[in-house]
Amino acid sequence: MSVNIARTADGWWIERGGRLVSIDTRASTTRELLADREAIERAIENGSAGPRVDDVVLLSPVTAPARVVAQMVNYRSHAIDSGFDPDAVLPTFFRKASGSVTGPTGDIVCPPHVGFLDYEVELGVVLGRRLEIGDVVTSENLGDYVAGLVITNDVSARDIQLTRTQFYESKSYPTFTPVGPYLALVSADELADLHALRLTLTVNGEVRQNSTVAEMIVSPAEALTLLARFQVLDAGDLVLTGTPGGTALKAPPKVVEKIAGLLPPAVKWRAFFSRQASNPRYLRNGDVVTATIGRPDGAVALGTQINTVRSRGLR
Amino acid sequence: MSVNIARTADGWWIERGGRLVSIDTRASTTRELLADREAIERAIENGSAGPRVDDVVLLSPVTAPARVVAQMVNYRSHAIDSGFDPDAVLPTFFRKASGSVTGPTGDIVCPPHVGFLDYEVELGVVLGRRLEIGDVVTSENLGDYVAGLVITNDVSARDIQLTRTQFYESKSYPTFTPVGPYLALVSADELADLHALRLTLTVNGEVRQNSTVAEMIVSPAEALTLLARFQVLDAGDLVLTGTPGGTALKAPPKVVEKIAGLLPPAVKWRAFFSRQASNPRYLRNGDVVTATIGRPDGAVALGTQINTVRSRGLR
Repeated sequence: MSVNIARTADGWWIERGGRLVSIDTRASTTRELLADREAIERAIENGSAGPRVDDVVLLSPVTAPARVVAQMVNYRSHAIDSGFDPDAVLPTFFRKASGSVTGPTGDIVCPPHVGFLDYEVELGVVLGRRLEIGDVVTSENLGDYVAGLVITNDVSARDIQLTRTQFYESKSYPTFTPVGPYLALVSADELADLHALRLTLTVNGEVRQNSTVAEMIVSPAEALTLLARFQVLDAGDLVLTGTPGGTALKAPPKVVEKIAGLLPPAVKWRAFFSRQASNPRYLRNGDVVTATIGRPDGAVALGTQINTVRSRGLR
Repeated sequence: MSVNIARTADGWWIERGGRLVSIDTRASTTRELLADREAIERAIENGSAGPRVDDVVLLSPVTAPARVVAQMVNYRSHAIDSGFDPDAVLPTFFRKASGSVTGPTGDIVCPPHVGFLDYEVELGVVLGRRLEIGDVVTSENLGDYVAGLVITNDVSARDIQLTRTQFYESKSYPTFTPVGPYLALVSADELADLHALRLTLTVNGEVRQNSTVAEMIVSPAEALTLLARFQVLDAGDLVLTGTPGGTALKAPPKVVEKIAGLLPPAVKWRAFFSRQASNPRYLRNGDVVTATIGRPDGAVALGTQINTVRSRGLR
């Protein structure tokens, strides 16, 4: 059974049955907390129940600055949504600024120049130790590298993302990475059995994303091995492992895309976003985005993330 | 007249007439050095000449970890080389892992899975203070944010870059960002007059890139303002401001590109790289890449960067 870590302005906690148990530690960063396993163990064994979760404001259990790396197109259903052949996807990474990390109940603030705001629920993997260049991570040693799992939302400004081609800016604005509520410290056995994890995301109660990790194209172990070709990671760093289908963005049919390819980019994108303007699935001011990740048997339950969209710019 | 900072395994130095003057500082990172202006001033005023530059091994004057942000397509000639309309380029950023930073005479080590290795000389801008979200940087206050300038080479694995679409991996392998030899601390006046800076890059003595900052599309001040929409930066962080034309990669003519757009991506790229295989400009094992940046009047002279390509994989 995994252990859920929470963070508030007052410090670190273990969540147990809807109440918080204080962790007696001087850690201020996630990396420092993960290094203070004794304090976590003490809280598990001897801690007494403090405030109710519902009575406090939870912060992201992943502190910034940290490296935030994300995987492009890593679920078969999202590959199809995005116009990719799911059997021919090349594993691809990009960076998000960790200044985009926000708490599990914070507002998602849309900058005024962004017109098409989208959601992407993703399983976040938090490193527990350093990943060195050349390291090979397998399902057998994944538990040596990964400390825990967390709900993340890879919020995306689609008009910036598609016109710039590089995803970095469009996914890095402040508040564009809600994280939490819980960092679930998982056992090696639980890590070896991620397929049963179900990801759901609703907007104002309407289910938009609902899928399981079984659909994932590149597993977390493979992803870390591929990352280790070029990127070191440290304890406390965060890897977003891709989103399943159901985002607001849906690629145009192949034939439309090919005709559009004959146009200059500016004309192509103008036509594309003029069609997208009638797509009601993009986020609007006041929308409530709710995301959950967990196993049906409850052995791993990352909690519920609830964020409200705030924007003056959006329709 | 700018002041050139150098770094060796023994510490920090000022370069003066081909000799090094020791800076008496406890700084280990570039950020710490930039905070110790008094030590730099003391070395300028009272330091005595030590070893000759040619007798020591210089390290990158930008230490890692640090944020390394790069600009896509930011010179008119490179826009044309890459198949973009230079008047319609949208300012675009991506991240490089700072683990890719290497010294000004180090080897560029090509991973065995990379087939098409390319060079990109770029003016590197090193921050001297924190850039906050929402900051507006102008040519008037640029000197408040920028401490100095440095030669960088944005080495690129073109087969990874183009097939993955996100540039992050292809430009982040260890040694893929040679930096130095000197961090030139420049005055506000010198920063206001960057246009005269000339960038050159040769491969085995053959000139490949030769252009000036006058050709730049988005100025460093504008770039920092755009970055401040989504990315905080700290002193010691590095921004690569784009490369001029002359890289090995040259986009196919528009008509070829449009026909290729009708093919599945894997087929398109296979055809593209099979044509590129006969392009002799990609880097090979043993190639010597030499880069310089400076003003014709010598008032800003960032030195000469000389790196040798090492690879078992390349043709």
